Amino acid sequence: MDGQVNLDPWGASNVRDYSRLFSLFGIEPIDRIIDQIPRPNRYIRRRVDFGHRDLQRVLKAVVDGTPYAVMSGIKPTGVFHLGSRMTAEKMIYFQHLSPKATVFYSIADVEAYCDNGMSFARSEKVAIQNVADLLALGLDPKRAIVYKQSEATAVMDLAFVFSRGVTMNMMEAIYGNRPFGLYLSALVQAGDILLPQLKAFGGPKPVLVPVGADQDPHIRLSRDLARRYNKELGFVLPSAIYHKLFRSLTGESKMSKRDPMTLLTLADDPKMAHKKVMNSLTGGRDTIAEQKKLGGQPDCCVAYELYQYHFVDNDDRVGKVWRECVNGERVCGDCKAEIADEVSSHLKEHQRKTVSMIDRAVDLIKESREQMPDKP
Amino acid sequence: MDGQVNLDPWGASNVRDYSRLFSLFGIEPIDRIIDQIPRPNRYIRRRVDFGHRDLQRVLKAVVDGTPYAVMSGIKPTGVFHLGSRMTAEKMIYFQHLSPKATVFYSIADVEAYCDNGMSFARSEKVAIQNVADLLALGLDPKRAIVYKQSEATAVMDLAFVFSRGVTMNMMEAIYGNRPFGLYLSALVQAGDILLPQLKAFGGPKPVLVPVGADQDPHIRLSRDLARRYNKELGFVLPSAIYHKLFRSLTGESKMSKRDPMTLLTLADDPKMAHKKVMNSLTGGRDTIAEQKKLGGQPDCCVAYELYQYHFVDNDDRVGKVWRECVNGERVCGDCKAEIADEVSSHLKEHQRKTVSMIDRAVDLIKESREQMPDKP
Repeated sequence: MDGQVNLDPWGASNVRDYSRLFSLFGIEPIDRIIDQIPRPNRYIRRRVDFGHRDLQRVLKAVVDGTPYAVMSGIKPTGVFHLGSRMTAEKMIYFQHLSPKATVFYSIADVEAYCDNGMSFARSEKVAIQNVADLLALGLDPKRAIVYKQSEATAVMDLAFVFSRGVTMNMMEAIYGNRPFGLYLSALVQAGDILLPQLKAFGGPKPVLVPVGADQDPHIRLSRDLARRYNKELGFVLPSAIYHKLFRSLTGESKMSKRDPMTLLTLADDPKMAHKKVMNSLTGGRDTIAEQKKLGGQPDCCVAYELYQYHFVDNDDRVGKVWRECVNGERVCGDCKAEIADEVSSHLKEHQRKTVSMIDRAVDLIKESREQMPDKP
Repeated sequence: MDGQVNLDPWGASNVRDYSRLFSLFGIEPIDRIIDQIPRPNRYIRRRVDFGHRDLQRVLKAVVDGTPYAVMSGIKPTGVFHLGSRMTAEKMIYFQHLSPKATVFYSIADVEAYCDNGMSFARSEKVAIQNVADLLALGLDPKRAIVYKQSEATAVMDLAFVFSRGVTMNMMEAIYGNRPFGLYLSALVQAGDILLPQLKAFGGPKPVLVPVGADQDPHIRLSRDLARRYNKELGFVLPSAIYHKLFRSLTGESKMSKRDPMTLLTLADDPKMAHKKVMNSLTGGRDTIAEQKKLGGQPDCCVAYELYQYHFVDNDDRVGKVWRECVNGERVCGDCKAEIADEVSSHLKEHQRKTVSMIDRAVDLIKESREQMPDKP
């Protein structure tokens, strides 16, 4: 039994059994359409991406060679961590599936100001770093619109329009009883999600939003609004692909920017990152003797997640790590040292790339500004 | 007894005894500071402007020669009627009191879109006409910022910021239980009211908002927010001056754009306007004999309001009309014909001026756009 399942984009979500989200919220299992996905990336192959809504719509656009968008957004409150990197990689993966794909990326500087007291100038700086990360990860800037919410009048206007189409009951049903500001924030995010379908960007089209399972309320709201404003603005219901939520390095349920040991960021000093990995929680037994006898427990091991989710693309190798672990052939210390080395050299390489992308990031934000429409 | 007094910016307000607003809502009587007002216009002299909040702050800026702002805004859903003209004239009066005054005028095209389904393009057209009216009425464009809400990112951003500072309880206490969209609309209006105090416009300063009594909830919200964000953004509490609500020409409590006979607009064909005035409700008696015996009732006469509020600047003449009426020396038909002639020639002259102002109006909107900051 899983107890009550709570998906909360602003708080603690508790999901132990992801399959419950299928019956509870109508998320579809990724399994059923996995054969239709060309060159599935490791997240999909390993079911880190466990579910979706209307992903077929996007896959059909890939096959038909018709336009679609992939959208995401983030508060520019700090450097990318492994979670932001996962979303970024999925965005980029779906961008590269077709020359007809455009990425939309919203820098939520207004929210960063409201929630975190970050000035717009400071947000701009962090955002440039984030966008350089995206470019280093492979984002094609020629098919990307990167905009700041504070300047995106069309998004704000959409939020305003939507505010007339929602009722308090509807907001409470989706989000529970929350402060006014969070409801508005949700409407602005719906504006972000539906923006790519405005006339200025070629009109209605499939839009894919890669998110963590906890963000599903925003997806449901956007789909509801797309339905409500379909007549007026022609919206197609946006699609989503969901990844499992992952834990902090030290095993707490939430990572916290306040405790740097709980999360890896893409800007971590590689040596420090090595230390963090060595310090991470494993599914190991109390003694080596016990470990050899009973085997380790990779499914509750954060270090194993680094192999499975984040850093190893080769399925055979991940399978081998898993088998060796459960067979008691792996000792946690060695296992962590192996991946820690890769994490730190990966970060070194990524940081080198990122530095060279800063100018391009500044340009991309500037170019995008010129493409944004003034109004819906 | 007045029963319950209800001030509703979006619905029907019922005020019979304006002095009750002093004790109920803390509006101050204009009487107490009338001696401090230089060259009071007819609205103030005749107590059509019956109350205020912190008007002294603005009057002090006039005396000291320090900067202040006068702000108003309107949904561009149609041509100006006598109500919009009254607000416009007050704005212009306070602009001309000091060379340090700047007018801010918000074109609420987002609201017009949400509430009335008006496209932004159509709003733009109507707004140009409205701004030409303002110029014809004497607005000095060199000290005026006229902006469209749909393009005013700083206003939208302020609304977003404020959304985090309000609670549902606070909104309900001010506005009653209303749909989500109206609460947001109220926050955007608070953004409009506090915009002139942003750094881009020289920082905190007195701001006067001339409004009808029914708009007081918006003033209270803005003052509340100015207080809450005083530390962060340095806001001075905005001031307001309140006019009495007036009735439709035919005597219903609300004018309605759906029934053109109920209201005079500045674009009315002068002949048609003449007809409307002749058709308006008076405080006359059933027969001329009775009228001569008992006298008329100017205080419940819409035609008299045209003298008192709208078209006659000379106090002596208004006093004479009143006396002649109550003494039974005036017959309603003649009285209406007298003012109808003036209304129609006034409109003719105003329309001539307005036509010549259209280009200037287009320029003013364009120039203002360049002065608007991107963010708070």
